[in-house]
Amino acid sequence: MHIAVIGGHNCSPEIAKIAEEVGREIGRRGATLVCGGLGGVMKAASKGAKEAGSATIGILPGNNKSDANPYISIPIVTGMGYARNSLVIKNADVVIAIDGKEGTLSEIAFALQMNKPIIGIQTWGINGIIKAKDAREAMDRLTEVENGRSRR
Amino acid sequence: MHIAVIGGHNCSPEIAKIAEEVGREIGRRGATLVCGGLGGVMKAASKGAKEAGSATIGILPGNNKSDANPYISIPIVTGMGYARNSLVIKNADVVIAIDGKEGTLSEIAFALQMNKPIIGIQTWGINGIIKAKDAREAMDRLTEVENGRSRR
Amino acid sequence: MHIAVIGGHNCSPEIAKIAEEVGREIGRRGATLVCGGLGGVMKAASKGAKEAGSATIGILPGNNKSDANPYISIPIVTGMGYARNSLVIKNADVVIAIDGKEGTLSEIAFALQMNKPIIGIQTWGINGIIKAKDAREAMDRLTEVENGRSRR
Amino acid sequence: MHIAVIGGHNCSPEIAKIAEEVGREIGRRGATLVCGGLGGVMKAASKGAKEAGSATIGILPGNNKSDANPYISIPIVTGMGYARNSLVIKNADVVIAIDGKEGTLSEIAFALQMNKPIIGIQTWGINGIIKAKDAREAMDRLTEVENGRSRR
Repeated sequence: MHIAVIGGHNCSPEIAKIAEEVGREIGRRGATLVCGGLGGVMKAASKGAKEAGSATIGILPGNNKSDANPYISIPIVTGMGYARNSLVIKNADVVIAIDGKEGTLSEIAFALQMNKPIIGIQTWGINGIIKAKDAREAMDRLTEVENGRSRR
Repeated sequence: MHIAVIGGHNCSPEIAKIAEEVGREIGRRGATLVCGGLGGVMKAASKGAKEAGSATIGILPGNNKSDANPYISIPIVTGMGYARNSLVIKNADVVIAIDGKEGTLSEIAFALQMNKPIIGIQTWGINGIIKAKDAREAMDRLTEVENGRSRR
Repeated sequence: MHIAVIGGHNCSPEIAKIAEEVGREIGRRGATLVCGGLGGVMKAASKGAKEAGSATIGILPGNNKSDANPYISIPIVTGMGYARNSLVIKNADVVIAIDGKEGTLSEIAFALQMNKPIIGIQTWGINGIIKAKDAREAMDRLTEVENGRSRR
Repeated sequence: MHIAVIGGHNCSPEIAKIAEEVGREIGRRGATLVCGGLGGVMKAASKGAKEAGSATIGILPGNNKSDANPYISIPIVTGMGYARNSLVIKNADVVIAIDGKEGTLSEIAFALQMNKPIIGIQTWGINGIIKAKDAREAMDRLTEVENGRSRR
């Protein structure tokens, strides 16, 4: 199971705490984290997932592995800039969006277009996103998605 | 001046009429139309632009030039699927969004992320889009953008 | 008919003369030139083609239209760096390679992989390339390819 | 250290044996294998590396993780077709080419273009490749590259 966590490369401490908790739960489930490999939500989720034992894949916009945050165990460089956003989503079975700006919005749109389940915590209000108010609720929604109870 | 017109590959006759009118105005201004090259809003806008004398660039998701609608004068194949959406926006100086679903939403997000002016007619209600109710009003907004009066 | 001319972004005056002549012949045949949009062989071929009336498509590695040489009528930006090489070949019906280094070699490889006819003037000695010693001979080979006499 | 092993998706048993041995040595060194994720040389190298304990990254041309050979521990889908070849090379610190056809040639060209050390076993005779006759010799060359003795 590959779970993408998407969100901005800058975020508040409150959002980082949620992202880290989501990452930790991904690790506890033995799933693999996929993200854009940079800071903010991506870094916090990677930290949580790595510390809980997950492989953490960071699909980077640039050409240098060293752009990855320190919690990425598998950096993948693309040199494609923003176009790498579609690769983050392609590589996920489920997507969890936390906060985020336009980059996150493009990833949400790709998730919907590719018909992948997407759970959102305090993010864009786009139809089709399964809403959750915090990490715990997101994990409940994830369990439902996995059990096939709430497929879009 | 390269103007992207984005919107769904299926649309109602009313939306097609608006898209064709937008295309025609782009042609009258001597600008080049950029789009995703397929049907619906893309086809209607291409028809309007081509008949008014514009070059029409269609950046296609697949590998076959023949996927382009008949009003595309310059088909560009990419074989990149949805990831081509970012190329449509990269190749535009200004973006006009008309109607559209998730694919259009990803393009709107890229336009905002790349800081390009985006005018929207009956499309997603995303902050940062310059709203217009029809083709005529969109052209007024476009003139203002060109004159630097309403830069974001 | 879209004809790609590939070769290095630096070249000798002799090679530039051949590339310009190839471009001019492409223009006389009413075909469209596709190239990587930069200097050297690309610029010389674009000059010849444009002055003979061809549309000239430049598929650029970067994000700025202004990177294109002055003879490109249709610049397409990709922001994909070297990965754009595959797009140059995808957009060609026939490929003409002139001189060139590793970038050109990657394009030759893609042409062979995509099973597109490729004519080579003073370039890499790779099996599968139809050899020609100068622009005139390349045009003879091109005519044969078009007539289906020398398909690979 | 990320080491790419490139070569055709079909190969003889002799070539497969070499590729598996190369993979095994990569695993023994504690390096990560990067490849195109499919059959032939890629599969044999992945088998050797995985059985010796390496992480094995397969950068796939399509959209389905299940296209990966059974020895890939980290499948990355791209949906980019042949254009993914440049990503395989981008993600390597050193490249080892074994046998192979045009696809491999495009990857060799990218390695040279990106100025990455490339060791070749029974592959294309391109200037700039460090030649080796078998897996053992390739590993000696790799050690030299790592020690900075034979940088291009």
